[in-house]
Amino acid sequence: MTVVGVVGGGQLARMMIPSAINLGLEIRVFAEGKDSPAAIAATQVGDYRNLGALQKFAREVDVLTFDHEHVPTDVLVALRNADVTVAPSPEALALTHDKIVMRTALSEMGAPQPRWAVLEGSDDPAHALQQVGGFPCIAKKPIGGYDGKGVRVIDSLSQVEDWLELGPVLLEERVSFVRELALLSARREGGQWVSWPPVETRQRDGVCAEVIAPAPGTSDSQNEQARALAGSLAEQIGVVGVLAVEVFEQPDGSLLVNELAMRPHNSGHVFTELSVTSQFEQHLRAVADLTLGASALLAPAGVMVNIFGSLTDESVAAGLEADPRVKIHNYSKTARDGRKVGHAVLLGESSDETLVQAQHVREVIHGSR
Amino acid sequence: MTVVGVVGGGQLARMMIPSAINLGLEIRVFAEGKDSPAAIAATQVGDYRNLGALQKFAREVDVLTFDHEHVPTDVLVALRNADVTVAPSPEALALTHDKIVMRTALSEMGAPQPRWAVLEGSDDPAHALQQVGGFPCIAKKPIGGYDGKGVRVIDSLSQVEDWLELGPVLLEERVSFVRELALLSARREGGQWVSWPPVETRQRDGVCAEVIAPAPGTSDSQNEQARALAGSLAEQIGVVGVLAVEVFEQPDGSLLVNELAMRPHNSGHVFTELSVTSQFEQHLRAVADLTLGASALLAPAGVMVNIFGSLTDESVAAGLEADPRVKIHNYSKTARDGRKVGHAVLLGESSDETLVQAQHVREVIHGSR
Repeated sequence: MTVVGVVGGGQLARMMIPSAINLGLEIRVFAEGKDSPAAIAATQVGDYRNLGALQKFAREVDVLTFDHEHVPTDVLVALRNADVTVAPSPEALALTHDKIVMRTALSEMGAPQPRWAVLEGSDDPAHALQQVGGFPCIAKKPIGGYDGKGVRVIDSLSQVEDWLELGPVLLEERVSFVRELALLSARREGGQWVSWPPVETRQRDGVCAEVIAPAPGTSDSQNEQARALAGSLAEQIGVVGVLAVEVFEQPDGSLLVNELAMRPHNSGHVFTELSVTSQFEQHLRAVADLTLGASALLAPAGVMVNIFGSLTDESVAAGLEADPRVKIHNYSKTARDGRKVGHAVLLGESSDETLVQAQHVREVIHGSR
Repeated sequence: MTVVGVVGGGQLARMMIPSAINLGLEIRVFAEGKDSPAAIAATQVGDYRNLGALQKFAREVDVLTFDHEHVPTDVLVALRNADVTVAPSPEALALTHDKIVMRTALSEMGAPQPRWAVLEGSDDPAHALQQVGGFPCIAKKPIGGYDGKGVRVIDSLSQVEDWLELGPVLLEERVSFVRELALLSARREGGQWVSWPPVETRQRDGVCAEVIAPAPGTSDSQNEQARALAGSLAEQIGVVGVLAVEVFEQPDGSLLVNELAMRPHNSGHVFTELSVTSQFEQHLRAVADLTLGASALLAPAGVMVNIFGSLTDESVAAGLEADPRVKIHNYSKTARDGRKVGHAVLLGESSDETLVQAQHVREVIHGSR
């Protein structure tokens, strides 16, 4: 039986477990703590920066993959040098560690993206500011940002003085976009590549609140543009596993790459119910070198709503009662204000109607704790 | 967090785990061995006939349910007397322990069933034989039969002499039927009841080989008859959890009850992919006293094929390669000739076409070990 080791015990590792059970893959999780969301499959608890601990874990798995992108590149390379199969590769994952590395690689790959520049504290900022079109622009900490953290819209450099003391800051053009999309796909070693249709992601305070799939009103040529972009990136990066490309749709319909992730991604959760193959199953199939599954959809529309703060027995029960069709995914995380603790998916005939219904379920859940 | 304890570590317990993970229920399995299919959730290994061991296990769960019907009634009653919530109830489960008890109860409930009689070694057989319409008739061991084991078509009593030495034998009329159907539904305490459409089950050598859902060519009135029958039985039995009613369809379209099961059942596996709510999720929702989910179908047709003998890494890989839409469920059982070791589901537009495609996948799997 193929053994897949997953570094990180969060909800993404948790949601790989059902697919591993179905396929008969053995899944082992290297978790941060005993109470992590993926605890049921945790065979080791430790610090993912500790090479020795990871080596011990990796010794008994056929392939090592990841719930997050925080394992340092030198640790990943050392693991591979010790004959551990690491998927995606350390080189691919390096693009997700540092947004400046990502922007540089995207430029080299010829991908459309916002204009960008790197600013260091000692630089004269004029050139960098000119490159991104001046103020207001977007400033990003290159490492460690997520869910709106580490991102600021700035009107003056004094607003990022604190970051500049720590190291270089990524500046990006403030793009005028009509909406954000995510392009989910997966690639297997050797080049087999399967994509899902683009989804629309809706943010609130920098955090994904809802995903609508397929992205409503997308033209055939936009779908083709999205497919070509994601496929080109997957192949040039040589990713093995799921690739999520977050993009801005500009008023003229063209796409600019915002972010990359090389693992199952919040924007792809809707496909667990909506598609023949979920992103979790697809990721496992890719890293275990199994033929990728079909990505056909089972309904005209699907909506995923994130659930924030807490999920209790009572609020899960209330959500299920609110709509007998809803599929709730409870990450079994401890409650914290604003924390993503689960999500719910509804399938339906139209995205407008389904969105309203899914939001209603979330309101019931949020109101029932 | 609600804790569901499952007695038995077979594939049915195994397939409850993904739904428990999704809903955020904690699932704990009392398994027969360390390598049981549901091992990932096993918190205790022991003998399910041992009341002390079960009591220890049950002390830390909110509700106790079952992967099989082999726990003796006196043990179930003792558990309930010790304030363990047992779902379904010992009285309900008793009907599945002994086919004579089941036939008696079905008669009392007014359910249509084959004519039947009980024969004991000391009896004059004439009366019993007359009740079932004479030879050939069906003889069944009341306890412990499954998958064609413990069932014989007999032309003379000498063919069941061995069984009569052990105790009473159930005789049943040999029904002329056109096909076998299964009626899957689930009931929650208090009476909420949700059914799936009838499925057609195809046996080979007394073992279910394929399930076609919904049962092709079933008229509205047959569906209504099936629904009324299953609903009446669920309510009269007071079952909590999934109820599977296996029935014979007679040439005039009427139904006769063959068997009952009060747990997820092989005939309902197709709904994991085909329906908004799987039988495993529905069973957990019922026993955890959560609102039952919708049973709407996501495709016009679904086919489940059982996989026999063995499933290897190679044969799973070959099956996935044979059809990118196929969903393989690998029970991670040790190989044994004729043993059900997994199943595969395909969804499609027509049952005829989908059956051919699913059988092809199975042939590839069976040919690739």
